[in-house]
Amino acid sequence: MDQIDLVRSLKTKNDTKIVMFVGDGLGGLPHEPGGKTELEAAKTPNLDALAAKSVQGASIPVKPGISPGSGPGHLGLFGYDPLKHLIGRGALEATGIGLVLQPGDVAVRCNFCTIDADGKITDRRAGRIPTEESAPLAESLNAIKIPGVEVIVKPVKEHRFVVVFRGGDGLGGNVHDTDPQATGVLPLDPVGVDEAGQKTAAIAKQFVEAAKEMLKDEKKANCLTMRGFSAKPEIPSYEDVYGLKAAAIAVYPMYKGLASLVGMEILGKPQTLEEEIKVLEENWDKYDFFFIHFKYTDSSGEDGDFDAKVKRTEEFDAQIPRILALNPDVVIVTGDHSTPSFLASHSWHPVPTMLYSNCCRPDGHTTFGENTACRGGLGHIEAQYLMTLAMANAHRLQKYGA
Amino acid sequence: MDQIDLVRSLKTKNDTKIVMFVGDGLGGLPHEPGGKTELEAAKTPNLDALAAKSVQGASIPVKPGISPGSGPGHLGLFGYDPLKHLIGRGALEATGIGLVLQPGDVAVRCNFCTIDADGKITDRRAGRIPTEESAPLAESLNAIKIPGVEVIVKPVKEHRFVVVFRGGDGLGGNVHDTDPQATGVLPLDPVGVDEAGQKTAAIAKQFVEAAKEMLKDEKKANCLTMRGFSAKPEIPSYEDVYGLKAAAIAVYPMYKGLASLVGMEILGKPQTLEEEIKVLEENWDKYDFFFIHFKYTDSSGEDGDFDAKVKRTEEFDAQIPRILALNPDVVIVTGDHSTPSFLASHSWHPVPTMLYSNCCRPDGHTTFGENTACRGGLGHIEAQYLMTLAMANAHRLQKYGA
Repeated sequence: MDQIDLVRSLKTKNDTKIVMFVGDGLGGLPHEPGGKTELEAAKTPNLDALAAKSVQGASIPVKPGISPGSGPGHLGLFGYDPLKHLIGRGALEATGIGLVLQPGDVAVRCNFCTIDADGKITDRRAGRIPTEESAPLAESLNAIKIPGVEVIVKPVKEHRFVVVFRGGDGLGGNVHDTDPQATGVLPLDPVGVDEAGQKTAAIAKQFVEAAKEMLKDEKKANCLTMRGFSAKPEIPSYEDVYGLKAAAIAVYPMYKGLASLVGMEILGKPQTLEEEIKVLEENWDKYDFFFIHFKYTDSSGEDGDFDAKVKRTEEFDAQIPRILALNPDVVIVTGDHSTPSFLASHSWHPVPTMLYSNCCRPDGHTTFGENTACRGGLGHIEAQYLMTLAMANAHRLQKYGA
Repeated sequence: MDQIDLVRSLKTKNDTKIVMFVGDGLGGLPHEPGGKTELEAAKTPNLDALAAKSVQGASIPVKPGISPGSGPGHLGLFGYDPLKHLIGRGALEATGIGLVLQPGDVAVRCNFCTIDADGKITDRRAGRIPTEESAPLAESLNAIKIPGVEVIVKPVKEHRFVVVFRGGDGLGGNVHDTDPQATGVLPLDPVGVDEAGQKTAAIAKQFVEAAKEMLKDEKKANCLTMRGFSAKPEIPSYEDVYGLKAAAIAVYPMYKGLASLVGMEILGKPQTLEEEIKVLEENWDKYDFFFIHFKYTDSSGEDGDFDAKVKRTEEFDAQIPRILALNPDVVIVTGDHSTPSFLASHSWHPVPTMLYSNCCRPDGHTTFGENTACRGGLGHIEAQYLMTLAMANAHRLQKYGA
């Protein structure tokens, strides 16, 4: 019995409300030994006050030493084993641009490329064609008709776009990439590994041929390659596993998409964290669980900008009182991974995490940061267990065994 | 290779003695942030003195957030993965009233109920018939004879009793409940899910028919339903896994039963903790391992009585010197789960745990409690690993690999 089955079998319903407040890439690093991390350097009076009533822990996104992308990072936070529930590259890319995948869909990441008169690749990324030029080209490919399947093409950025094959009969994602990873050679044919993949490959081949015909006179991008074929991942829903009516509040499509993959409803169209909390306030009575995503702790970390991350962390802190004013039963403050500005990238470091409830067993810490979290009453804990703890603290889990 | 196979393959024998001293539901909660737990509030000079020579840790009974019943709680303490080794409801109920199950037994929880002239259920619990009246009725069912199988019926409380089918040929526990969970309908027939279950179902049906005939003129309880059919769980014994001659000392039948399921010998009939320690002293030379169970830290927690739990914890503490006077090589002090008086129920919170040996690597704590345990040298650790640590500290495990 895995954790999801266990929680599903023990879940019960009541009127409690759970908030998961996620600062993307929240964890950081000091820039010199003995120094402070971004979170420790930030003035966070509200997080610190909450810490005094909470229990902290060090959340390990996947396994020690593993730096996750946004997909596995959020799957872990949502309570799913990120090594068991995989989101294919195509599905993640589609999700990231706001395409809501349906059962039976196969999503593919595509690159515009250039080919010579012999059909051999001359530039695998079509000279990183500007988005203004590539987007209309990608949109035009929506005109392609393939019998028995709906074709949905959506631009991403520069040479990248996404295609989704929808409504086909038993399509699968098990198809090899067609990018040969070299120039001077032909693009590969799509090859299906199993029966469902072979069905997809046949459709993909028709798509490529039609696209080549449409693009043949384009100077900057006259062909395409396909990578990361993937079906919609089969992830049990929040309603199924937790019995929670769950909602997600986020600015960026990627996080809305990840939340929708587990069946959360996506609320409003907030553009700032203040607006996100306003959406929370307006919808407070309608849901049991709220996932609130703040992007900029991650982006400032990715930029390698310590001071900017400190400032973004203070913005994150400033919204805590508005959340607490709603009187939630359980609050989890965490991140999907660390993004230390020192590394300017996602990292494997445990994420400072705290859980508040009236029965959380506070651990005596009165500030919130990496050092306190690593010595917290929750210990070092894989992110996938945070939702179980949230459910327990919300009295939404029955006893296991008699 | 799971933990049990690993330990089995590495075990070796010597003259060391291990004591596992279990305060049921030992872990607690403060009643306000910054307050003390029951264990922290209690005066525990003996536990504190032992802490100075020990290493502490936070024991997670099953997984983070999971509140176990006594069955999984003790299986974890005994070193078995409580998600892998399940004790069926019928087997646990039988065990809880002191029936020692044998291989091949199938145990069933039964409810007296009432039926009308058409055989339809009018009260699923026979009006919660008082035990004084139900017990003789249950005992009378021992007169039922079924060819090829021994029938053992034992009263529990009010409408509840247990039946064990013994000595049948290949009986199994995979049988659906016969309680339709509704009134105005007929009890269900027992239906076996597999071949062994079908054999049991056929016997159960004979039992029900004979019982109905015997009970037909009883006003208060003229029928019965059957739930939780379960075979004796197959759990490798302490002798097999650890090579330990193991004994259990407990007051209540449930804990004697759980210990007997893993092959421990049940010693004496102590009625108090003082008497339990006397049994320990009298049998010290005869066994390698002693499990000593103290019930009242749990019951006072279940009663929601903080002060009573403090007092019971102090009684638990008072017996430590008598245990140490026997000069054990390894002592583990722990609980099977937390039972905070704040929640008046079993909970998921990690259990304060300490391990003493002459090579335990003490962690510098000089008191024993939830906060020190959560910062202890053993870290946060699943209960199922405590026995491996006990074996290691007793020098009873060989090196793994060369």
